[in-house]
Amino acid sequence: MENDSLDKAFHALADPTRRAVIGRLMQGPAAVSQLAGPFGIGLPAFLKHLRVLEESGWIRSEKRGRVRTCHVRPERLLAAERWLTQQRAIWEACTDRLADYVETHLAPEDPA
Amino acid sequence: MENDSLDKAFHALADPTRRAVIGRLMQGPAAVSQLAGPFGIGLPAFLKHLRVLEESGWIRSEKRGRVRTCHVRPERLLAAERWLTQQRAIWEACTDRLADYVETHLAPEDPA
Repeated sequence: MENDSLDKAFHALADPTRRAVIGRLMQGPAAVSQLAGPFGIGLPAFLKHLRVLEESGWIRSEKRGRVRTCHVRPERLLAAERWLTQQRAIWEACTDRLADYVETHLAPEDPA
Repeated sequence: MENDSLDKAFHALADPTRRAVIGRLMQGPAAVSQLAGPFGIGLPAFLKHLRVLEESGWIRSEKRGRVRTCHVRPERLLAAERWLTQQRAIWEACTDRLADYVETHLAPEDPA
């Protein structure tokens, strides 16, 4: 469950258009037509990217009349950050242990 | 260039086996056979995952005699973290601006 959700979250980030859409929506909601403008790709391809973002939980959208507005879901950011932070913690703990070991066992004797 | 590198970095994370390999290697280097053990998938499939990790810059490997040892490259973690941190900064800046606006324009008058 958690794994599947992270698979989708990271897969969504593996594309420059999708990352740019997330970056844009972090500044506030936007209509699909407004969002698509700067990318210069066809609307069907753009909508496909939005679908990936929506299915992976990075964005949600709502339709009012003929306008569909997209919002970012910042809790998805938290989940991705959490995984990276865990990896950093593992790495730093092991680096600290290594430094301790070197200090205790391999440090040159005090020349004084 | 930077975009292509992030595409690969995030694509590599979109799989539970690859994330687990990274997590394991954050604890220290390991031989391929040692790494593959716990996953219960065929060696060809496992080697394919390692190739994705190596091509995306998450790991490097070296062969001594008949043993290939894998090492994590923690700088890749930094690049992925940097992107997420940028998004958080954009989001927080906009949330702060919204809070300021609400406080200045929409706060109820002091009842005292």
